[in-house]
Amino acid sequence: MRRLVLLLSGPNLNLLGDRQPEIYGRETLEDHVASARAEAATLGLRVEHRQSNTEGELVEWVHEFRRQADGIVINPGALTHYGWSLHDALATFDGPIVELHLSNPVGRESWRRTSVIAPVASGVVAGFGSLGYRIAVRGLAELLPA
Amino acid sequence: MRRLVLLLSGPNLNLLGDRQPEIYGRETLEDHVASARAEAATLGLRVEHRQSNTEGELVEWVHEFRRQADGIVINPGALTHYGWSLHDALATFDGPIVELHLSNPVGRESWRRTSVIAPVASGVVAGFGSLGYRIAVRGLAELLPA
Amino acid sequence: MRRLVLLLSGPNLNLLGDRQPEIYGRETLEDHVASARAEAATLGLRVEHRQSNTEGELVEWVHEFRRQADGIVINPGALTHYGWSLHDALATFDGPIVELHLSNPVGRESWRRTSVIAPVASGVVAGFGSLGYRIAVRGLAELLPA
Amino acid sequence: MRRLVLLLSGPNLNLLGDRQPEIYGRETLEDHVASARAEAATLGLRVEHRQSNTEGELVEWVHEFRRQADGIVINPGALTHYGWSLHDALATFDGPIVELHLSNPVGRESWRRTSVIAPVASGVVAGFGSLGYRIAVRGLAELLPA
Amino acid sequence: MRRLVLLLSGPNLNLLGDRQPEIYGRETLEDHVASARAEAATLGLRVEHRQSNTEGELVEWVHEFRRQADGIVINPGALTHYGWSLHDALATFDGPIVELHLSNPVGRESWRRTSVIAPVASGVVAGFGSLGYRIAVRGLAELLPA
Amino acid sequence: MRRLVLLLSGPNLNLLGDRQPEIYGRETLEDHVASARAEAATLGLRVEHRQSNTEGELVEWVHEFRRQADGIVINPGALTHYGWSLHDALATFDGPIVELHLSNPVGRESWRRTSVIAPVASGVVAGFGSLGYRIAVRGLAELLPA
Amino acid sequence: MRRLVLLLSGPNLNLLGDRQPEIYGRETLEDHVASARAEAATLGLRVEHRQSNTEGELVEWVHEFRRQADGIVINPGALTHYGWSLHDALATFDGPIVELHLSNPVGRESWRRTSVIAPVASGVVAGFGSLGYRIAVRGLAELLPA
Amino acid sequence: MRRLVLLLSGPNLNLLGDRQPEIYGRETLEDHVASARAEAATLGLRVEHRQSNTEGELVEWVHEFRRQADGIVINPGALTHYGWSLHDALATFDGPIVELHLSNPVGRESWRRTSVIAPVASGVVAGFGSLGYRIAVRGLAELLPA
Amino acid sequence: MRRLVLLLSGPNLNLLGDRQPEIYGRETLEDHVASARAEAATLGLRVEHRQSNTEGELVEWVHEFRRQADGIVINPGALTHYGWSLHDALATFDGPIVELHLSNPVGRESWRRTSVIAPVASGVVAGFGSLGYRIAVRGLAELLPA
Amino acid sequence: MRRLVLLLSGPNLNLLGDRQPEIYGRETLEDHVASARAEAATLGLRVEHRQSNTEGELVEWVHEFRRQADGIVINPGALTHYGWSLHDALATFDGPIVELHLSNPVGRESWRRTSVIAPVASGVVAGFGSLGYRIAVRGLAELLPA
Amino acid sequence: MRRLVLLLSGPNLNLLGDRQPEIYGRETLEDHVASARAEAATLGLRVEHRQSNTEGELVEWVHEFRRQADGIVINPGALTHYGWSLHDALATFDGPIVELHLSNPVGRESWRRTSVIAPVASGVVAGFGSLGYRIAVRGLAELLPA
Amino acid sequence: MRRLVLLLSGPNLNLLGDRQPEIYGRETLEDHVASARAEAATLGLRVEHRQSNTEGELVEWVHEFRRQADGIVINPGALTHYGWSLHDALATFDGPIVELHLSNPVGRESWRRTSVIAPVASGVVAGFGSLGYRIAVRGLAELLPA
Repeated sequence: MRRLVLLLSGPNLNLLGDRQPEIYGRETLEDHVASARAEAATLGLRVEHRQSNTEGELVEWVHEFRRQADGIVINPGALTHYGWSLHDALATFDGPIVELHLSNPVGRESWRRTSVIAPVASGVVAGFGSLGYRIAVRGLAELLPA
Repeated sequence: MRRLVLLLSGPNLNLLGDRQPEIYGRETLEDHVASARAEAATLGLRVEHRQSNTEGELVEWVHEFRRQADGIVINPGALTHYGWSLHDALATFDGPIVELHLSNPVGRESWRRTSVIAPVASGVVAGFGSLGYRIAVRGLAELLPA
Repeated sequence: MRRLVLLLSGPNLNLLGDRQPEIYGRETLEDHVASARAEAATLGLRVEHRQSNTEGELVEWVHEFRRQADGIVINPGALTHYGWSLHDALATFDGPIVELHLSNPVGRESWRRTSVIAPVASGVVAGFGSLGYRIAVRGLAELLPA
Repeated sequence: MRRLVLLLSGPNLNLLGDRQPEIYGRETLEDHVASARAEAATLGLRVEHRQSNTEGELVEWVHEFRRQADGIVINPGALTHYGWSLHDALATFDGPIVELHLSNPVGRESWRRTSVIAPVASGVVAGFGSLGYRIAVRGLAELLPA
Repeated sequence: MRRLVLLLSGPNLNLLGDRQPEIYGRETLEDHVASARAEAATLGLRVEHRQSNTEGELVEWVHEFRRQADGIVINPGALTHYGWSLHDALATFDGPIVELHLSNPVGRESWRRTSVIAPVASGVVAGFGSLGYRIAVRGLAELLPA
Repeated sequence: MRRLVLLLSGPNLNLLGDRQPEIYGRETLEDHVASARAEAATLGLRVEHRQSNTEGELVEWVHEFRRQADGIVINPGALTHYGWSLHDALATFDGPIVELHLSNPVGRESWRRTSVIAPVASGVVAGFGSLGYRIAVRGLAELLPA
Repeated sequence: MRRLVLLLSGPNLNLLGDRQPEIYGRETLEDHVASARAEAATLGLRVEHRQSNTEGELVEWVHEFRRQADGIVINPGALTHYGWSLHDALATFDGPIVELHLSNPVGRESWRRTSVIAPVASGVVAGFGSLGYRIAVRGLAELLPA
Repeated sequence: MRRLVLLLSGPNLNLLGDRQPEIYGRETLEDHVASARAEAATLGLRVEHRQSNTEGELVEWVHEFRRQADGIVINPGALTHYGWSLHDALATFDGPIVELHLSNPVGRESWRRTSVIAPVASGVVAGFGSLGYRIAVRGLAELLPA
Repeated sequence: MRRLVLLLSGPNLNLLGDRQPEIYGRETLEDHVASARAEAATLGLRVEHRQSNTEGELVEWVHEFRRQADGIVINPGALTHYGWSLHDALATFDGPIVELHLSNPVGRESWRRTSVIAPVASGVVAGFGSLGYRIAVRGLAELLPA
Repeated sequence: MRRLVLLLSGPNLNLLGDRQPEIYGRETLEDHVASARAEAATLGLRVEHRQSNTEGELVEWVHEFRRQADGIVINPGALTHYGWSLHDALATFDGPIVELHLSNPVGRESWRRTSVIAPVASGVVAGFGSLGYRIAVRGLAELLPA
Repeated sequence: MRRLVLLLSGPNLNLLGDRQPEIYGRETLEDHVASARAEAATLGLRVEHRQSNTEGELVEWVHEFRRQADGIVINPGALTHYGWSLHDALATFDGPIVELHLSNPVGRESWRRTSVIAPVASGVVAGFGSLGYRIAVRGLAELLPA
Repeated sequence: MRRLVLLLSGPNLNLLGDRQPEIYGRETLEDHVASARAEAATLGLRVEHRQSNTEGELVEWVHEFRRQADGIVINPGALTHYGWSLHDALATFDGPIVELHLSNPVGRESWRRTSVIAPVASGVVAGFGSLGYRIAVRGLAELLPA
């Protein structure tokens, strides 16, 4: 059976395509996920996607999938900057984790430059806009043990 | 039809009237909302009020009302100091936003002096105790396009 | 006899209407004061207004009125950020003090975010542009003892 | 009737025994709670335990029990470092509060050294691993009015 | 023979019961030590107690007992904040160390929040007033190898 | 002829005896100056006193007296913390300068702990309340060349 | 008619030639102004000079000349480091502004390294001693629109 | 003709495969470049690669290729943290720039967390080890205008 | 009987007259103490003097005299900057405390500007060189209750 | 023979006229140097110009010319912010040094506000755009001994 | 007669050979001193060695030997980081002082990177383990006047 | 064959003997190297010396010699403070590294107190002036495996 990628999207990402399109582009979250799924399929992977605006729910999905998933791609939204509980949940996961941002946080407000998720991320992909989800899945695939 | 003000109250504000009355006064949240409603009525506005102790729920109310509401008054409670997801949700709202605090945060603990909500607020009203909700609604009315 | 509000305007506010109208609007200081007076009249208050570009003069007006005035509304201009003598003068005043800013300082240069006046202010009103003087007078009225 | 201790466990503590056992030991949360209950019984106390991965839920349990409980023992997990809403909820509680950590936070990552809960805690117990819940209950018992 | 606990008290603790009783309570250091001894006896431990106002003397007692003692309970007094030599001495001790404070340092002056002893402490007990010595001995007992 | 002491008092000191008497005592500035004069007389000195709420005026008195005065005693009020122009003026004076504060600034708000005047002061006298003016004059006398 | 340069000198500059000549040289302010005037004449400019020890007065000269002057050269003295009101006044001026210091502030006390005037200055000239006024006028001339 | 990617490698990267293989893997820089070339070929791109241990040389290659290259992938090595001249050179380039790190800098020494290159990078790829060069080229391809 | 002043001198003050005379003058500690005694006698006070190079010894003299002495004058030497145990000892003393420094610490190395003793000092006398002991005794006399 | 000015231009300045013309203007480096030469000629000076993108090369030109040149004008480019080796080289030069920037660094990114060259510069000229080279040469001429 | 080196060892160094041998090696302090003595003898020097765990005692040995010793080698142990009294004592010594650390402090905890002794040390020797005492003596010999 | 010491000298050290002799002494770099060679010979070592003003060149010498050299002595000059590429190159070297400074950096400008080289240095030798090269070679000899 194909290996499983848990794809997590944090607060406000359900507005993608609608919110500040000059920064985040016009594609919806569904578009992004579909593109991630397509990429995954070509790599022999399947994708479970979850989005929440509440940190606790994201924490619990990590708990739920920590035995099943082979890797995690997470776009933590604003939780990037203060989601220590999410950090602790991810720290219990043994597989590779890729942190994903659609824009390059450094070019924006200064508080966006600190990531509390990064210390538990194996890899980071940022700034590729609507293509980020796809590149992150591909990167994760490379980090999975053969 | 009358224009709509979304009135949001953050964590612990459901205890108003009961919690530390020497700082926050003896009126309950219901009293404050009623007084905001009365003020709004005199200005040709109507008020939808929501209170939650969970940031994600507040985020989702902003999403729900971002097309319908003409303006937002928000008393973020302690989320003032770390609610970056709430900040991001509010940043997607096009109308005026008034940030409201019952006490003047500067006269209290130092961590209460930083607001992550302020960068997306058009106006701030702080320190007017039980009258703050009313003044904030009136202030918001002034910021609404004619 | 009607109670007295001392209305103080700090450095450069005499240029209002003329200086950076995209930030401060097109109304002159006289317009703002007239609107504050009108609002005060409906609340049974009268207003004495003083403007100065010199901190010492503002300090002395606080001294002069500290027995007569029932409350103070102050728009300290740039003295907000370093006017410790003005702070000390206001600290000797027993009635309520409302700190007023036409724009929301948080949205501008970082040094504008610190207020040395705030520790002695009962309330703060910021970001309401040309309506700020009126809202501040109304807020002060609410803080006056019945 | 026996006096009531509210025992609260924050995010990720439901994984105890499973997550990083080299730091947190092999006992499950149920084991810890059972041991706290046994200790409480010898002291004439009873224990209500709640665990959540969502700050808002912990806030609401504090609200629910603030009239009934005689004391609170809280292991806030990662909320220790940014749970200001939880702080505000606990600040409304009149009885003694003991903050509990299984490991000594100082020996770990630097961000684990700051506690936003500590300012409202009467006492702190940290570093006693699987015995911490028991010691904290005993310590709380000592702080309860006779 | 019963295992040995070295109990160390730092500067000014000889004034306990006499100094700022509203913070530290009315019991003398002798009372605290007696209560620690009683608790120890019930746990099959014996206690050697030393108090000094000079850091060097505390350092030397750690040296003297580092082979004999099975564990250390230390209330470092103000040396908590700058006693790096004491830190280095304790770092040479192989058994468990419990750091004890009668009050919760976080609720006091800001400089009291930093502990240079904590990095070498296995556990921390703070805020339990006159019962702290007893709780610390019990906690230490739990940390001793069986 | 007797040597001359320039005695300078900064902003708000004209309110002494009237403002926050629990901190500054009940004596007026006139009382303080009279007591300084009396002390000076016993030491063969005479005193010129000036008070202003405007930094520029204090600067100009330093200029005016810099050739005539043998020493300066200055209570800079809030200018202590930001009066760099006053600092530069005093730096041009060749004789001894004593900086005087009625209360001990360290026991108050944190911003009161920084003095921009101290780098040009030969000596400091603080915390002696109504006796400070007298002690400062005596101290200055000791610093005058024989 | 020749274009107008407003030349402003801040606190203590009236002492030039007399104060710390090892840093500022032996020429008086009158000498400097004369040399600026001579340079201006060769460039088809005329100079109005004002000096004050009070920030408010400098602010008002900026107001007075903001319509008439074509450019400003300002040596703010110690106001360089805290004159935010002067900064705000200069920000209302549309023409070029040259900030002038006789010595290079970086080589002196650390607080002299921060300029609150620099953000509104088009150009800076520092360290040329008695020739600075002349160079600054020439530099300003280059910045004036043809 | 195929579009051109300038691939730049900074100081010490010529040691890849040889230096700290537990962090950077066993592949040589030649291996990485070959893999980048292969990936590029599948995307219709060609790659020019340059490596230098001297910042000035990297600056000059940016100058040389700024008209010819369609995009840049740069692994700046330690220049990431202080190469402001390289930053300035890249800022003159109009096409997309991808910043590449083989390891995730956040998991290492604290000074490795600051990137002076990031402000001019469109995207960031970090932590994918020997696959990073390939992923970065693919990411860059996505950023190139169609 | 005459009231008692405890006069304490900290580390290295036994070298006075011998150590860095360009800063501290040529008088020995004995000279200073004799002059303090003489001054005290004229004020109806007597002086006990103690000097130590060990903080613990100074702590113990404070303990010994805290019931007998009416006031304390302390020149803490370098303990000014880190003597928190001495701070705690002095905090237990009910009478007035004068902190004395022979030179003005602000004019010297930056670390000399922080005093951990100041928060418990009623008054401060600094910069009067060999006359400081005398002035401090006189100042203390003024602070003693009549 | 005419006195010699060494004119040094740092990294990326060879792109002048081409790079970000909205900030740096349209003139090339050759234009600037020609204008500096013309100005120098009128002052009886001759100019040697060197540009490099490598700090070490600039260091060596300072070494080469330190006996021959009478003064140095240096536009360090980005080395302004971290070129400590260049700083050390310039510190060995006995004649006057003028630091030149075409734009006023304060109005740009925050890291551009720190200059490691300034401590060894006699004078600074910034913000005069294409005229800066000329003004700097003239300023240097004034600093040369007669 | 041979010149005298005062060799001082600070807190916990009496445990050398016994404490953390993986950092400090297996040789005892006596071994180190013997090796320093042997080295000194070959250089025509003799060595007095003192070790103490109390800062005050080290201060007094500096006092005792400041006229007799020709140079000082000091391994301050943890006093390196807060021994300001020791700093002041050493500052009174006219001969050369070598600061010695067995390990390189930079490779360890961050607080070990600050030395309050360094400002009065002529030279520093760190990281040579059991050979450090010998190298320091030799280095001191080179600094002694011929 | 004798073991090899790579001796590296950073920017500006080629000026030794000529540059600021009051700090660095009158001996030339050749003198220092000769003295290092002589010392090495007595220890059975030979020395290769390289000096460069360009960081990249020093990096490449480390690469070139990292298999051949048994140890490195490096005087990094100003690269001490920002030479992260040099740091990374040295980190690839397996043998002992001694960091050498002729003067004691702590006694000079504050930025000279930070070393980016120290984390990879086994030992540090500073402050011994013209003898430093010799002492460093001797120290390195001690660190070489037997």
